[in-house]
Amino acid sequence: MTGEISKIGVLGAQGKVGAEMCKAVDAADEFTLVAALDAGDDISALVDSGAQAVVDFTHPDVVMANLAFCIENGIHAVVGTTGFDEARLDQLRRQLEASPGTGVLIAPNFSIGAILMMRFSAIAAPFYDSVEVIELHHPDKADAPSGTARRTAELIAAARREAGSAPMPDATSTSLDGARGADVDGVRVHGLRIRGMVAHQEVILGGPGETLTIRHDSMDRASFAPGVLTGLRNIADHPGLTVGLENFLDLD
Amino acid sequence: MTGEISKIGVLGAQGKVGAEMCKAVDAADEFTLVAALDAGDDISALVDSGAQAVVDFTHPDVVMANLAFCIENGIHAVVGTTGFDEARLDQLRRQLEASPGTGVLIAPNFSIGAILMMRFSAIAAPFYDSVEVIELHHPDKADAPSGTARRTAELIAAARREAGSAPMPDATSTSLDGARGADVDGVRVHGLRIRGMVAHQEVILGGPGETLTIRHDSMDRASFAPGVLTGLRNIADHPGLTVGLENFLDLD
Amino acid sequence: MTGEISKIGVLGAQGKVGAEMCKAVDAADEFTLVAALDAGDDISALVDSGAQAVVDFTHPDVVMANLAFCIENGIHAVVGTTGFDEARLDQLRRQLEASPGTGVLIAPNFSIGAILMMRFSAIAAPFYDSVEVIELHHPDKADAPSGTARRTAELIAAARREAGSAPMPDATSTSLDGARGADVDGVRVHGLRIRGMVAHQEVILGGPGETLTIRHDSMDRASFAPGVLTGLRNIADHPGLTVGLENFLDLD
Amino acid sequence: MTGEISKIGVLGAQGKVGAEMCKAVDAADEFTLVAALDAGDDISALVDSGAQAVVDFTHPDVVMANLAFCIENGIHAVVGTTGFDEARLDQLRRQLEASPGTGVLIAPNFSIGAILMMRFSAIAAPFYDSVEVIELHHPDKADAPSGTARRTAELIAAARREAGSAPMPDATSTSLDGARGADVDGVRVHGLRIRGMVAHQEVILGGPGETLTIRHDSMDRASFAPGVLTGLRNIADHPGLTVGLENFLDLD
Repeated sequence: MTGEISKIGVLGAQGKVGAEMCKAVDAADEFTLVAALDAGDDISALVDSGAQAVVDFTHPDVVMANLAFCIENGIHAVVGTTGFDEARLDQLRRQLEASPGTGVLIAPNFSIGAILMMRFSAIAAPFYDSVEVIELHHPDKADAPSGTARRTAELIAAARREAGSAPMPDATSTSLDGARGADVDGVRVHGLRIRGMVAHQEVILGGPGETLTIRHDSMDRASFAPGVLTGLRNIADHPGLTVGLENFLDLD
Repeated sequence: MTGEISKIGVLGAQGKVGAEMCKAVDAADEFTLVAALDAGDDISALVDSGAQAVVDFTHPDVVMANLAFCIENGIHAVVGTTGFDEARLDQLRRQLEASPGTGVLIAPNFSIGAILMMRFSAIAAPFYDSVEVIELHHPDKADAPSGTARRTAELIAAARREAGSAPMPDATSTSLDGARGADVDGVRVHGLRIRGMVAHQEVILGGPGETLTIRHDSMDRASFAPGVLTGLRNIADHPGLTVGLENFLDLD
Repeated sequence: MTGEISKIGVLGAQGKVGAEMCKAVDAADEFTLVAALDAGDDISALVDSGAQAVVDFTHPDVVMANLAFCIENGIHAVVGTTGFDEARLDQLRRQLEASPGTGVLIAPNFSIGAILMMRFSAIAAPFYDSVEVIELHHPDKADAPSGTARRTAELIAAARREAGSAPMPDATSTSLDGARGADVDGVRVHGLRIRGMVAHQEVILGGPGETLTIRHDSMDRASFAPGVLTGLRNIADHPGLTVGLENFLDLD
Repeated sequence: MTGEISKIGVLGAQGKVGAEMCKAVDAADEFTLVAALDAGDDISALVDSGAQAVVDFTHPDVVMANLAFCIENGIHAVVGTTGFDEARLDQLRRQLEASPGTGVLIAPNFSIGAILMMRFSAIAAPFYDSVEVIELHHPDKADAPSGTARRTAELIAAARREAGSAPMPDATSTSLDGARGADVDGVRVHGLRIRGMVAHQEVILGGPGETLTIRHDSMDRASFAPGVLTGLRNIADHPGLTVGLENFLDLD
């Protein structure tokens, strides 16, 4: 390991996730929380406090300015804020060229379980005739299916295309509208909205005489903490831009 | 128990289900299989063999003639053949009036697990904010959702109507077509078609902070046997027409 | 409904469960929270505030004094505090004789899902050859199996005894210690301790070719609220002592 | 691919698994079943029929003689028969040295789902605080836990040892005998015996706020077929001895 990082700042420290991340950094033996900033605070406090890396769970409107400041000051960043498109990623790459040695991790999902579920589903998909996805969430959610379910289905479809898998068998000839779920790249995705649920997903794969089921249950925002800490532990060894926490995990 | 039934005939004895029922009757201590008939056999063999009750898994085209013969000869009948509408049931009721003491049980489902799943779902439904149904079958099935899933959803909807339950919460505003399943009387039903599966169903109920899940897995036609044997054990005590095996089960 | 209850007091209002109950009473249209008391507060505030019923989630050391005061003053009580034995229940019955019209509900479990799971398991148990119980909890729990799992197993065993069910089949002849779980009245119970879990239980019943699974997932103390509100809505119609919330639920 | 294999023989063709394998070979476009032999048949029929590879599901008593014949005649072998120890494997390695270009695959498990379950469990295990294994089988099984469950637990324990994972948290201080399952290398394993089940296993992993579950359901011996066909498709490219089907699967 080349880097020796211990002093951490959190941006968005008063948000729901940010507050959890402050607690997680504080509780980790190897890290010290040296700055906990939110909207209205002066970001230069990061430099004054000697922060070597930040965790950013803020807002698409402010994250690019936050990162520009961090990169200029050689502060690594582990970022869970959403809203990154190719244009934004390219801009970060250019900024990072001027600050060699600084690392930025952008991750759409810090839940290690969700990453493993997607990875295992893609590996297993070509070995089976049928693959479908069920996602279950609380009924206050606005979109169906969930972003994670869509992404999982896309990864499954890509893995099967690459392997030359046959289309999935389905003899349905009489059907009520919607009974077979949504079609995402040829993979059926089913979304349930149930009071009491938080965020859950199940991928079911089947072949002659057997099925394999991979299920992820996320009950609490605390589930992001191990992923963020893994990001902090590895960021100094990955200068430049990294997209996706899976690049820091040993999954083989 | 008023009846003392031991000699059993099976109609449709060479069909897949019928053959299983012959085995099950043969294996039951209290019963003797005295006649195993199929298309082409002379039904009067039932009388010659002394059959006191028959099990009928035949075809809608022949079942009414089979039952007319049985009722005339005072032979009880436990019937899993499909295709009964109100007209047929009325005709059976009239025929049974002329043969007091003879019982006929018509059951759309002899799986005790499926009956319990439907019953428990209907009892529990009014206690929860949300209820949805998932059914999973092999991909050679022609209809979606399954008949059992539809029936379950109808029973859940009826129980909630009777209890004055509020509509289920669902904030979905952006959705891919089919993502939220089919709507059966206001209950969402999701159908999966997976190679390796046989016939499975899950009812998920949720309220603040908790969920209840009732799942039935049917792996084999052998699962009809306990229900048919329960029918045979009780038929002599239920003269006239009975629709639904649940009437013979002690479910309170 | 004979009673017209609207003014509610909560005892133990600063405890984890009590605080949730205050919120739940406050949020319910038909109820007004008129007193929220904890250790150190003067219980006569209940009378001054006009409370018609109380919710008690306190401590075995103080609950009997709390209830004596309520009964004397004709205030109904819905009680989730633990530690009631036959002697305590008898004492309450005697006190209630002197205050006809006052109702006290003592319930070891206010989770409707847990009650339904136990009830359904007991109803279904005699129809199956095999029944086992799995409970899954966070790893900070001190006892294994959980009290609910033990109680469930006892109810299953009792239902099978009453129905004359055969012993469960089990050909195990070579086994590692503990592999087949704990034996509670002849029912095997398996306890898992998994970080990230809260309180979960699964009852699996199986017969030839099919299985039935009843699962309860409790994620949050909020799950007690619907049961407590059900208790408050019905307590005025049930003078005297009632043990078990199931007596207020329509489960047939 | 270096090899062009199409003519296949099956040894143990009248056994339950062997008969399934004959069907599977017959149904595969690229293969022709040229010999289906069982005890009493002359194994030299393999040579006469031009078999290029055999599938062996026979018995520990005869499998070494079968393989000696195959190796001498340059016939590849895909072997599901049990009973191989290091001495037997060494003997095969020596025999294969004298027949370069011939491949023998010995696999304790041809179910691709079981292999994936074990592999994914081992990859995921170091990312979680807690990991436990549940296996569910029919009640006629003699050993508990199952061989696959033991092997899975051993692989999980090895992966955690290598990663330097902490011991799993468990605050249990009061316990009924067996409630926490069997201890296999520090991993708790729970075995259920339920009528109607075939062969099922679930690995549950948990960390703060989330759990990951990997479940394999095997309903039918047909589930071995895809693994055996994968073995046949790859055996000619893997001369010498290979132990474990996972070596022929692309799992990264």
